[in-house]
Amino acid sequence: MATDKYDVVIVGAGPVGLMLSTCLSRWGYKIKHIDNRAEPTPTGRADGIQPRSLDLLRNMGLKRKIMEYEPAKVYEVAFWDPNSNGIHRTGTWASCPKFIDARHPFTTLLHQGMIERVFIEDIEKNGTQIQRPWTITGFKNDGADPAYPVEVNLSHVDGTHSEAVRAKYLFSGEGARSFVRDQLKIGIKYKDPIANVWGVMDGVVRTNFPDIKMKCTIHSDAGSIMVIPRENNMVRLYIQIASSTDKDWNPRKSATAEEVQEKAKNILKPYTISWDRVEWYSVYPIGQGIAERYTLDERVFMGGDACHTHSPKAGQGMNTAFLDAVNLAWKIHHVESGFAPRSLLSTYESERKLIAENLLDFDARYAKLFSARIPSAGEVAGASQANSQMEENEFIKTFKASCEFTSGYGVAYNPNTINWGPEHPAQHPLILPYEKGTALRTGRTLIPATVTRVVDANVVHLEQEIPMNGSYRVYVFGGSAQKTKSALRDLATHMANPTSFFSTFTHKDTSVDRYHEKHNPHSNFLSLCSIINSPRSGIEIDELLPEIFARYRDHVYADDVWDQRVPGAKAAAHAKMGLDEEKGGVVVVRPDGYVGVVVKLEEGAGTCEALNQYFAAVTGKKMGEERASL
Amino acid sequence: MATDKYDVVIVGAGPVGLMLSTCLSRWGYKIKHIDNRAEPTPTGRADGIQPRSLDLLRNMGLKRKIMEYEPAKVYEVAFWDPNSNGIHRTGTWASCPKFIDARHPFTTLLHQGMIERVFIEDIEKNGTQIQRPWTITGFKNDGADPAYPVEVNLSHVDGTHSEAVRAKYLFSGEGARSFVRDQLKIGIKYKDPIANVWGVMDGVVRTNFPDIKMKCTIHSDAGSIMVIPRENNMVRLYIQIASSTDKDWNPRKSATAEEVQEKAKNILKPYTISWDRVEWYSVYPIGQGIAERYTLDERVFMGGDACHTHSPKAGQGMNTAFLDAVNLAWKIHHVESGFAPRSLLSTYESERKLIAENLLDFDARYAKLFSARIPSAGEVAGASQANSQMEENEFIKTFKASCEFTSGYGVAYNPNTINWGPEHPAQHPLILPYEKGTALRTGRTLIPATVTRVVDANVVHLEQEIPMNGSYRVYVFGGSAQKTKSALRDLATHMANPTSFFSTFTHKDTSVDRYHEKHNPHSNFLSLCSIINSPRSGIEIDELLPEIFARYRDHVYADDVWDQRVPGAKAAAHAKMGLDEEKGGVVVVRPDGYVGVVVKLEEGAGTCEALNQYFAAVTGKKMGEERASL
Repeated sequence: MATDKYDVVIVGAGPVGLMLSTCLSRWGYKIKHIDNRAEPTPTGRADGIQPRSLDLLRNMGLKRKIMEYEPAKVYEVAFWDPNSNGIHRTGTWASCPKFIDARHPFTTLLHQGMIERVFIEDIEKNGTQIQRPWTITGFKNDGADPAYPVEVNLSHVDGTHSEAVRAKYLFSGEGARSFVRDQLKIGIKYKDPIANVWGVMDGVVRTNFPDIKMKCTIHSDAGSIMVIPRENNMVRLYIQIASSTDKDWNPRKSATAEEVQEKAKNILKPYTISWDRVEWYSVYPIGQGIAERYTLDERVFMGGDACHTHSPKAGQGMNTAFLDAVNLAWKIHHVESGFAPRSLLSTYESERKLIAENLLDFDARYAKLFSARIPSAGEVAGASQANSQMEENEFIKTFKASCEFTSGYGVAYNPNTINWGPEHPAQHPLILPYEKGTALRTGRTLIPATVTRVVDANVVHLEQEIPMNGSYRVYVFGGSAQKTKSALRDLATHMANPTSFFSTFTHKDTSVDRYHEKHNPHSNFLSLCSIINSPRSGIEIDELLPEIFARYRDHVYADDVWDQRVPGAKAAAHAKMGLDEEKGGVVVVRPDGYVGVVVKLEEGAGTCEALNQYFAAVTGKKMGEERASL
Repeated sequence: MATDKYDVVIVGAGPVGLMLSTCLSRWGYKIKHIDNRAEPTPTGRADGIQPRSLDLLRNMGLKRKIMEYEPAKVYEVAFWDPNSNGIHRTGTWASCPKFIDARHPFTTLLHQGMIERVFIEDIEKNGTQIQRPWTITGFKNDGADPAYPVEVNLSHVDGTHSEAVRAKYLFSGEGARSFVRDQLKIGIKYKDPIANVWGVMDGVVRTNFPDIKMKCTIHSDAGSIMVIPRENNMVRLYIQIASSTDKDWNPRKSATAEEVQEKAKNILKPYTISWDRVEWYSVYPIGQGIAERYTLDERVFMGGDACHTHSPKAGQGMNTAFLDAVNLAWKIHHVESGFAPRSLLSTYESERKLIAENLLDFDARYAKLFSARIPSAGEVAGASQANSQMEENEFIKTFKASCEFTSGYGVAYNPNTINWGPEHPAQHPLILPYEKGTALRTGRTLIPATVTRVVDANVVHLEQEIPMNGSYRVYVFGGSAQKTKSALRDLATHMANPTSFFSTFTHKDTSVDRYHEKHNPHSNFLSLCSIINSPRSGIEIDELLPEIFARYRDHVYADDVWDQRVPGAKAAAHAKMGLDEEKGGVVVVRPDGYVGVVVKLEEGAGTCEALNQYFAAVTGKKMGEERASL
């Protein structure tokens, strides 16, 4: 009997596994996806979606389905401290303050099961079924079949059935207790020496505590509690039951729901609280740790809680899981599509592990600073302002960095082949680094900008216009089209060269009718947008743009929408990116939304050459004149 | 055998019948709803949702479900006229220009069947089933059962089954061919003497016509066409096949799909067009007419196309249908709840018939003006600006009024018992008319304003905060709470009087636990919001507000969000309403979103007295001191 073969075997249907499965199923991969639970999460567990993650979900067309569940939205965090009456509020802070340019400046709170269901529906629509309750019992990268080098053994949790399959990749999204990680003998490094036991309770309460619908951190003489509002009029309470700093520290210490409620009542005094019902209650010890490796062979990968565990305080678990999965998904896709060398896969660990480390380092530093003293009202106000005149003391700096981290916009990947930097093989003089004026930083998300789509005059969010389709996103900011006419024509001419970054991966099958294809008419390697500094009514696409750009007619935009952040700009999108409003520039964004490189738009071959150099490094192919002259 | 009894029998499950059924099913009424079609609309028919209608759907929690179908959005309309080469664009106009303060300044295009499905799902969730394919065969208001005065005879369309039921009300949403209207011998008055035969075609096309994704009105020497973009990459074309102004006018004139396509090809020259597929094609004659009455006895009502038919040009059919239904729904609800005398029902015809008449009058006037000459670019630009310095000539005035009408914000109900005016029985000196400074006009929608909800710091749209729950909406703009403290306390004190507008309809059943009731803790007659001119963090609800207002704690807002339309205002919501930012005011909004009355907020009994006077007229009950002294 022939062994079944899959592109990827995914173990675990929590946030990381589901995100990976969704991306790869949409892009046409054959997936074996198992989970050892008989059903999706019924209640409780992770529930916080950060602003950046919401952008990502919107880019995947999933935000609306999430919002249908009417999640709670956290815009501010309140801090409460002990006083002679019990507790009092010391201040409230925006959870995503105005200095962060976010479309959705709030955290979305929704129970994990509902989020899982949104993904599962999408996965099933794309032909993958999650097999439950099945578990992994063994695997080896034996290379017996070079195309499908990994053998994976799976079995029903009751042991009645089992199967062996072969796969190109195996992914563990198993959570903190990972069979795969254990088998690979990969250790966990605990960054934060302090471990805690937490009690978590979701329920409907009656209380006169005024901030019950806000996220609150409450310190009282009776202990500490964290309040998080939830969908369906529920409230989640996190109560610290034990800490490794306690004298009698016992990581197995537990507490009943009634004990936790009693403790909450004491902490909240002088306010009262009682429970109409408890939907979910759990006690778990957690340490903040990171796996030493995310992969050993770039065939068997791990992500999410299997690689890094977080204190629930930061609300990061699901968000880092999503970003792990998206990071890996497009890299597997590009390698398997021939768009990138296998070495691209090494950037999964280097990029994502650094983020997890930064997050944990940061969390520890912040907690320490915070516990050391209570910030003054002035500091809080100052830290929340975009352009504070105040001197930035360490507290404010740390607070700002904290907001960036927890919102998800603080993710900054270091320079490597895909994130241009001073050491990058592409060193063309037209490459425009952050230091020389653009507001865009490689390895960070594209700055949001509102523009008008030319074909239908719809006012749209530029950064959302290309759906997450696995393609690089090339944004041609055309400046003033009168002034850049030659530069645009020259860029198009050189892009049409069969050895250019644009032409190298054009669709092989020319018999397919792509008339109605909006995003990938030429290739799946990239999608292209043009943004012109002009009122919409002044843009005649076919007259103004070279044919190659005009072909992406659904992605031609007028930069004519006023923006409060750059009130004096005529072309706000250009201005926000830090590009010359007259001369424009070209911005390359990775398939997962992070800026890869920024290039000046100039007459002649230079702009295309610079892009060829960047993409040559990215794809491992020779491109442009360099290749033509060989 | 006992005859089944219903609150309302609804005939027809098009937009008007579905909207009525949705509202009344949600509010707990027993509905018999039939439709003579075996299935909801499969393709074609009405498809334009105007900005005001989208607000309404959002207020009902249905907007997100509509948007899930990814409708086309029309932001601009392009005008094309003949020239020597064929046709050329003379200009484009915003369909809902900036001078209209709209949350959704676009028309939403989606085929009627999808819209119907959203309503049907909601109706079924609330316990009503649509019985298909059934039709009405007779009815009489015989009063044989005083509580259910109307007998209605229904039968399966194949005649195999029939039933007789009794109802409090019968509603015909049958469309232009209405059995009920015929039986009542109510005539149609054709306002516009010109009748037309239209061909309508939905399909997927290939074309180099640049405005194919815009709404276009195209005049050419080969005829006229209207282009409307649709969901799923479709385009709708309306082509005039015959007009009563033709010499050989024949209202039965028809054309095949091929003939219409050929005509379209000629009209669009020099551009080309061809069809990948045609989803729907229909030819129908239409005249713009209005039924002479909408009801004879205030028991049997009609709405939607049964009362008024529109040219498809205006895109108004579904929108006026929605507004008819909502207008009637809450009035039936208030009469049946004892919140209003039966005479309230007479305002259905007087309000809605006037709107239909204005719309048709206006459409004729506008078409005439428009056909007389082509507007200059300057006029178009001038008309689209919010605060144009240009002199407003008749064209610009008509254009602006046209935008208000077609967006739905031009609906202005005349003064009557529910829309305060100079002849209203309530003539308290604290009533604040439009002429004396408030920006709010009775009989018009509440001006939109963005505020911060105090309990959870969510930034929200004030006008959307009370869902369409059938209650009056009382907005207490508290100004600066330090200055209005006494006024608020006095208002609360007088509202607590058992004979006040607030107390008259308090819930009878006090044994029901209403702890978690956000909108109607005291009564179903009204919901209440408080809006304070203060940063959110400065508002302690329980300290600042009298207990009655504090009870609506989910409806307390900080007026602290900057608004581009009133850039100098500290309290933008107060400023937009034209209320004093320090002194505030009270705004009463009808359950369907139209302003009823505006009252000054002052110390003493006056504010409550003014409200008592207004509501005494609305409800037909004596209220306040007047009643107490009897």
